[in-house]
Parts: sequence; structure tokens; C-alpha cells
Amino acid sequence: MDIQKLSTGTCAISRGLALVGDAWSALIIRDAGRGMTRFEQFRTSLGIAPNILSRRLDALIKAGVLKTQRYSERPPRDEYVLTDAGSAFIPILAAIGEWGRTYNGEGTLSHIEDVATGEVVRAVVTDKGTGKTVEPGSWRVVMPG
Amino acid sequence: MDIQKLSTGTCAISRGLALVGDAWSALIIRDAGRGMTRFEQFRTSLGIAPNILSRRLDALIKAGVLKTQRYSERPPRDEYVLTDAGSAFIPILAAIGEWGRTYNGEGTLSHIEDVATGEVVRAVVTDKGTGKTVEPGSWRVVMPG
Repeated sequence: MDIQKLSTGTCAISRGLALVGDAWSALIIRDAGRGMTRFEQFRTSLGIAPNILSRRLDALIKAGVLKTQRYSERPPRDEYVLTDAGSAFIPILAAIGEWGRTYNGEGTLSHIEDVATGEVVRAVVTDKGTGKTVEPGSWRVVMPG
Repeated sequence: MDIQKLSTGTCAISRGLALVGDAWSALIIRDAGRGMTRFEQFRTSLGIAPNILSRRLDALIKAGVLKTQRYSERPPRDEYVLTDAGSAFIPILAAIGEWGRTYNGEGTLSHIEDVATGEVVRAVVTDKGTGKTVEPGSWRVVMPG
């Protein structure tokens, strides 16, 4: 994929996908949102090869989704934390989870719950202005020009 | 990526990502949602190599996100249309677009509008039960067991 082209094109959807355009990257964001910060935590959680994990972490840092934070001076060691952009992607993962449950949901699955109330959260996409659910056929992409 | 493992694991988010785990696949869904059905339309829109496009179309069909539909008997020709699962992913793309606009939005960008009213739609993720916006820190993933 020509990530540079996606990242500078005129489609807002492409702009979003360019920052997190594969499942590994999105799952790293999921785990960072669950409180993981260390390379070994991500590696163990995802069962991912270290070289692939390194590349994905670097790409997410370059994309401004993760940042490093020094947690040990001797030896020098960094951990990975979400930026504001990274945090703001987390609710989208909740919506992807609901979609995955509906269309690929055999067996026992994770769910998400409200931290304050413990209630199960069912994430849906709505329009901020009207509060209406964004239905597949109710809107269209308008390219500039 | 071990797509099979992602696709059968216990995390609902992984289950979602397994079906559309890269930017090309998601952009094919975007274009199908814009009414494109033909191989050449996708190829031209995405500027994607034909062999890569073929592989992604096949993977989306296997994942149940696209289906083929015969539009010519002689010569036999199929077009690609969204399944219910594919259509249901479209609102998530709207949310990804809003996120892309916010964090990677320099220059002139596409927007989405309500088909009925022509109003700009700002897609946000909310909880179906409470109607509240799903904030990054307001919920947690609960793995089974």
C-alpha cells in the first residue's frame, strides 16, 4: 500500500485508515487502551513476531498514534502510550467489536462495559448533530470539487 | 498476520478486524458503499495493482463482506456488491473518516452528508443503550473467563 498517498489524499476515510491501516496496528491500539505499555506485554498479548511488532510500533509512533515515554534511565527504556489521536480511536474499536460480534461472532466473546456502571456497552455510530444512527444507506461520501 | 487465529479468537474487536484488517479492504468497502460494483471501477478509484485488488476482493468474499452477482451471461461477468455485513461496516467508515479529519486532516477533505437532508454528518460512536458518547476512558474490554 502506498501509505503516503493514502495519508495525503482528499478522502477523510483514507486519512483515518492511513494511520491504522491493518489489524495488527489496531490491535496494538486496543491493548494500549487496556493499559499495556511494554513491548513484552504487546508481544505476549498478540502472539506477534518481535520484528513485526517493532515495525508496527514505529509506524504508529510516526503516525502520531503512539508516543514513547521513558520509564527507566539506567538502562534506558521506553514504554508506549497512546497520544490523543490514539485514544480517540478506541471508541471506533468498540464499534468494530460490535460489528465483529454480529457478523463473526460464533462462540464466547469479549464484551465491553462501562467503567463507571459495569453495564455492557453496545457501540453504534450516530450523527453528532442529530443523534440519529448512521445507517448504511442514509449518507454518502462527497469528495471535494 | 494469522487471519484464521484472529478470526476465531475470543475478542470481538479482533473478530471485526479479521474481516477487514487492512486499508485496501476497507477502501474497497467504502467504494462499494458509493455504488461501485465493477473491478475496473475499484481499480481506477483506488489506483491499486490488479493482482492486489483481485486478492482483496476474494478475501472480502470469503469473509462474507462482499458477494458476487452475475450481470452478464455472455460473456459471463460478475460484479461485486456488499452483503449485509459489508453494509453494516459502512457507518464505521464514517466514524473513521471523522477521526481522520481530526488527526490527519490538513487541506481540503471529503465529507459525508445525509442523503435525505443534505446536511453534513459528523459520525461519533455512542452506546446504544444510554445514547452517551463512548469516550476513550469510559469503558473497558472484558475478555471471557
